Amino acid sequence: MSKEYLSKILQRSADASRGLVMDMIAAAKSGHLGTALGLAEIGAALWGNLLHYHPTEPRWLQRDRLVLSAGHASAWLYAWLHLAGFDVTLGDLRSFRQKDSKTPGHPEFGLTPGVECSTGPLGQGIGNAVGLAVSAKKMAAEFDTSSCGIFDHKVVCICGDGCMQEGVSSEACSLAGLWELSNLILIYDANGVTLDGPLGHSQNEDVIKRFEAYGFEVQEIDGHNISAIIRVYHQAAQSTRKPQLIVAHTTIGCGIAAIEGSSKAHGESGIAYAGELRPQLGLQKDEFSVPQAVGDFFKKHRQRQMEIYDQWQIRFEAWERDFPERAKALKILVSRKKSPIPLDMKDMLPMACEATRNASARVLQYVAKEDDSLIAGSADLFSSCKNRIEGSEDFSAQNPLGRNLSFGVREHAMGSILNGIAYDGFFRPIGSTFLVFSDYMRPAIRMAAMAHLPVIYIFTHDSVLVGQDGPTHQPVEQLASLRCIPNLDVLRPADTEETMGAWRAALERRDGPTALILSRQDLPLLESIPDRLRRQGVRQGAYVAKRESTNLREIILASGSELQHALEVGKQHADLRVVSMPCMERFERLTREEKEKILPPSCRRRIALEAACAQPWYRYVGPEGQVLSVDTFGFSASADELQKHFGLTATHLEDILQKNHLEVL
Amino acid sequence: MSKEYLSKILQRSADASRGLVMDMIAAAKSGHLGTALGLAEIGAALWGNLLHYHPTEPRWLQRDRLVLSAGHASAWLYAWLHLAGFDVTLGDLRSFRQKDSKTPGHPEFGLTPGVECSTGPLGQGIGNAVGLAVSAKKMAAEFDTSSCGIFDHKVVCICGDGCMQEGVSSEACSLAGLWELSNLILIYDANGVTLDGPLGHSQNEDVIKRFEAYGFEVQEIDGHNISAIIRVYHQAAQSTRKPQLIVAHTTIGCGIAAIEGSSKAHGESGIAYAGELRPQLGLQKDEFSVPQAVGDFFKKHRQRQMEIYDQWQIRFEAWERDFPERAKALKILVSRKKSPIPLDMKDMLPMACEATRNASARVLQYVAKEDDSLIAGSADLFSSCKNRIEGSEDFSAQNPLGRNLSFGVREHAMGSILNGIAYDGFFRPIGSTFLVFSDYMRPAIRMAAMAHLPVIYIFTHDSVLVGQDGPTHQPVEQLASLRCIPNLDVLRPADTEETMGAWRAALERRDGPTALILSRQDLPLLESIPDRLRRQGVRQGAYVAKRESTNLREIILASGSELQHALEVGKQHADLRVVSMPCMERFERLTREEKEKILPPSCRRRIALEAACAQPWYRYVGPEGQVLSVDTFGFSASADELQKHFGLTATHLEDILQKNHLEVL
Repeated sequence: MSKEYLSKILQRSADASRGLVMDMIAAAKSGHLGTALGLAEIGAALWGNLLHYHPTEPRWLQRDRLVLSAGHASAWLYAWLHLAGFDVTLGDLRSFRQKDSKTPGHPEFGLTPGVECSTGPLGQGIGNAVGLAVSAKKMAAEFDTSSCGIFDHKVVCICGDGCMQEGVSSEACSLAGLWELSNLILIYDANGVTLDGPLGHSQNEDVIKRFEAYGFEVQEIDGHNISAIIRVYHQAAQSTRKPQLIVAHTTIGCGIAAIEGSSKAHGESGIAYAGELRPQLGLQKDEFSVPQAVGDFFKKHRQRQMEIYDQWQIRFEAWERDFPERAKALKILVSRKKSPIPLDMKDMLPMACEATRNASARVLQYVAKEDDSLIAGSADLFSSCKNRIEGSEDFSAQNPLGRNLSFGVREHAMGSILNGIAYDGFFRPIGSTFLVFSDYMRPAIRMAAMAHLPVIYIFTHDSVLVGQDGPTHQPVEQLASLRCIPNLDVLRPADTEETMGAWRAALERRDGPTALILSRQDLPLLESIPDRLRRQGVRQGAYVAKRESTNLREIILASGSELQHALEVGKQHADLRVVSMPCMERFERLTREEKEKILPPSCRRRIALEAACAQPWYRYVGPEGQVLSVDTFGFSASADELQKHFGLTATHLEDILQKNHLEVL
Repeated sequence: MSKEYLSKILQRSADASRGLVMDMIAAAKSGHLGTALGLAEIGAALWGNLLHYHPTEPRWLQRDRLVLSAGHASAWLYAWLHLAGFDVTLGDLRSFRQKDSKTPGHPEFGLTPGVECSTGPLGQGIGNAVGLAVSAKKMAAEFDTSSCGIFDHKVVCICGDGCMQEGVSSEACSLAGLWELSNLILIYDANGVTLDGPLGHSQNEDVIKRFEAYGFEVQEIDGHNISAIIRVYHQAAQSTRKPQLIVAHTTIGCGIAAIEGSSKAHGESGIAYAGELRPQLGLQKDEFSVPQAVGDFFKKHRQRQMEIYDQWQIRFEAWERDFPERAKALKILVSRKKSPIPLDMKDMLPMACEATRNASARVLQYVAKEDDSLIAGSADLFSSCKNRIEGSEDFSAQNPLGRNLSFGVREHAMGSILNGIAYDGFFRPIGSTFLVFSDYMRPAIRMAAMAHLPVIYIFTHDSVLVGQDGPTHQPVEQLASLRCIPNLDVLRPADTEETMGAWRAALERRDGPTALILSRQDLPLLESIPDRLRRQGVRQGAYVAKRESTNLREIILASGSELQHALEVGKQHADLRVVSMPCMERFERLTREEKEKILPPSCRRRIALEAACAQPWYRYVGPEGQVLSVDTFGFSASADELQKHFGLTATHLEDILQKNHLEVL
């Protein structure tokens, strides 16, 4: 195929994608037209020439990963997936943005073949791409040999002005520079327009200089010039040390003269020109049609892709033969079935009165030895959150085998990079910070929950009882606000045994993230409860920690550091039941019968005790119940003083009980 | 005073501050020693020479604002406030980090004279400083005249490696460059060490180049060289166009050989060397003592400060005399009593069936005309959130009078910059984004609530009913997670009248932030409820929207777009009460009697209806009540389909009621 013909057919494909994009958005009467049109030539170059993919084996190990960080341009992605031969039919394009379609408003991981990440909230995709690139570097380091490389795919990320403005992208790109992720190619769709108007209203920074400062190599091109795109991509793909930024200047809404280059092009207003676009681009008038030549070209292109795939397959089989140990290890990683957690960790772990963050550290060391897919990161708090994997170094360009990721004080990038690693599916990422700073990474936690990623968060320093650092460092509302994220499990264990149970629960979970909420301060070992009960109990979310010995009169519910006080009071009252409730989400997954065994509906006298805001507990105690909680910000003082001030003590609980009893008498 | 003597006495003062810092942290057995020691010379240069301040009039209009973004170095700030003569006594230093002290673990606004902002969560202070600089530019533009300038103070911000790594600082500094905030001086305490170890583990970016890319002018110095600090500060202070960054290389823990330069210096471990520090620095052995010469120097320095103050005062009085109109306007801004909201906005506003975001837009235009302290910003969503103040331009270097702030897609910087403006206290800031993206700015919202800042947030597109954009853009858990932030009022009005009430509630509130949660879609005007009741009802958080006409059998609670369905069902049942509950926080501030009038405890049959997660409602309906809510992520579909899927309809509510009635029979 001549270079000339290639340019011509790719331009024709670009225009064909414009037609499809317009058809989709016009049919849905909703969607983001401008970026999807502006990216047409970039799409043609990528899907028609540059990317390596396998349409019917969309998770092929060696595929290039394409992340559309500018997720609002989903129509663009679907159009190209269709043209490239993925299982995204014209019918799917017709049902763009409709209920139960494969083509929702923003790309959703797991729903559409070829969609690598769920995107939409701006900037997240850049973090995801950095995570995918980390994963790729690690895979190459683990499995490539000097004689045979099997992992050398690229991670390509399409991002817009909005992605570049979000702080999470600054954090993530600084790390990409530090880690020398030469396999990362960011394509910046620099269309110079945001929703509210010209970019100049909100930005005049020198983006190229900024990215060079991070350690990127930067090239600048006309994003509508297909041969330029191909040329700079090839150059970027040669990189051995620096991550790559391609600044592609494009015209938003390119193809519709009336709106192109203006913020009006962003949304769906351009569909007023739907009738004009196809004839102007020389396309058939029929909606959802593709020119024959374009269809033929992509058919041939798929054959070329198959040849590349076959060549890799041969290489891969030779590798499997020559390095059977590695091949076996790879199979285990790929099957994702490895979480060899022994049923009883007790023998390995001396039981102790200790902070649950310390208990967690010991469990982690143990399981990290058994399961080498686990990798651990921290936002500069390894030393406080205690989740560094011992015996392994920091991940770095020099040492990609390192299992620890030092994210610096960049919680948000940590969250989105962990997601990227989890999307790739080989490694199981763990990330840590103080509970109060989970707020900084909340948008990434939400995406992990939505995309069913099995990320594990270690959030320590879990209540006002962190003490003298004061209210900025004392979590109050974070437990409640994490508990209301759908599909996130929040576990707050009460002692070492419960911490082991919490870790098991986290490791066993594969369809969503888990947050382990751990104490800074020492907690007693709750030996009045059988070990097995504590460990198993955590996994079902709640269990009876102390059963009444006469008629049940009152139930106290507690979690974490407060369970000890509930138990102390429970000892004094035969008619009292104490329920440990480390995880509300798991409790809610029990059957009604199982739940009622723990919380009999007949007993409505209930008190909940937790050093955090009350909101989640009313579900279990109701308006007539009581919640001993922390509903204002804390203050700088000793843990003891804070505990007394907020009434988080056995004495206070006992007083409440006595008062209740008097009221009844 | 000779230059030589000045250098010498400032160095002695620096060492004196080291002594005090060590004494405080040793007495508290807690605190962050390393940075507080490393900043000693910078402190001496600032407080002993460069800054303009008035110790007994700490809110002097023309003072330089110093923000300690690295809030963990609070001991440093308190030591210097003491030496500079602020009302921070040696006794206060002795009670560092103790309950009820003026010297808490991290600086708290309103608690300590001379503390401009509450800081601690890293990066926030940089955003605050940008906000203070915006406020200063606006004040100068509003009040300075060509013949007489009264506002030309500087905003100085001390930040560390952690602040620089956080994405919020990237966002905020890009805006500082855009807005040419020449009055902003960032002093970067580049000590090359973070909590987990050498900075190189998490960063190798070229910070200078990065800041030049934002549009900063950058100077680099030895942060222990006092004359160098003074020299570059003076140079920075000359800036007319570019914000300034001073990269000050310091040694963390400087003064304690055993730990300096290492991450061990960060926390309190250095207090093991407390006994050695004072003699090594040539200080008296007595803890909490200050060398006579240093005390004398600062006494004289206060006199010099008073002279500067007096000169300004003379200038100010002349200005007052010459420009009485401006002086009057300034008095109003300073007194912060201006919120001239007419009791009845109705005449100005045609009532309509409209989206509450549109109703809000109309109210805003009206009140913005009456109250020129209001300024409005958006994270690139003015066009969707509809909160641009009409008839005014964007704030910019060329037009500092502009009342609209285009933040770009930078929610987090928006939040922290709004806080900075509110800390300054002249302007009342409003900021907008989609409700789902409030997550991006959550750490800043928390700080606004903690510091009692009267910021107003406009969060639109308030439920899954935004429709086809899909789950990434559909808020589910955000309402609950905002409601659990202490001291934040969350208001979700149901129609235009309630929206007016919500705005009044927000404008009247002075001791904390308010979030207005507004619909994208049109909502009917709820004319079955008297206008006054809707408007007043919002301000008390909840009210009886439809009263039962026979014995009360059941209560339906609802907010926002769901209230219409509750009312529709309510019409059919004489024994049903409908309660509109747009603001739980305001409801909780009512007396018990007031609350029970709205929600009689005798009636336990209650159903809550809201297109958001159920968590906050159990407080009002209890375990035996029902919440019709949205507790999973949504999906990309039409609003109608989503409404049906989640049962957010009158029909579904009626079915539930019928079922309940059957169960009782």
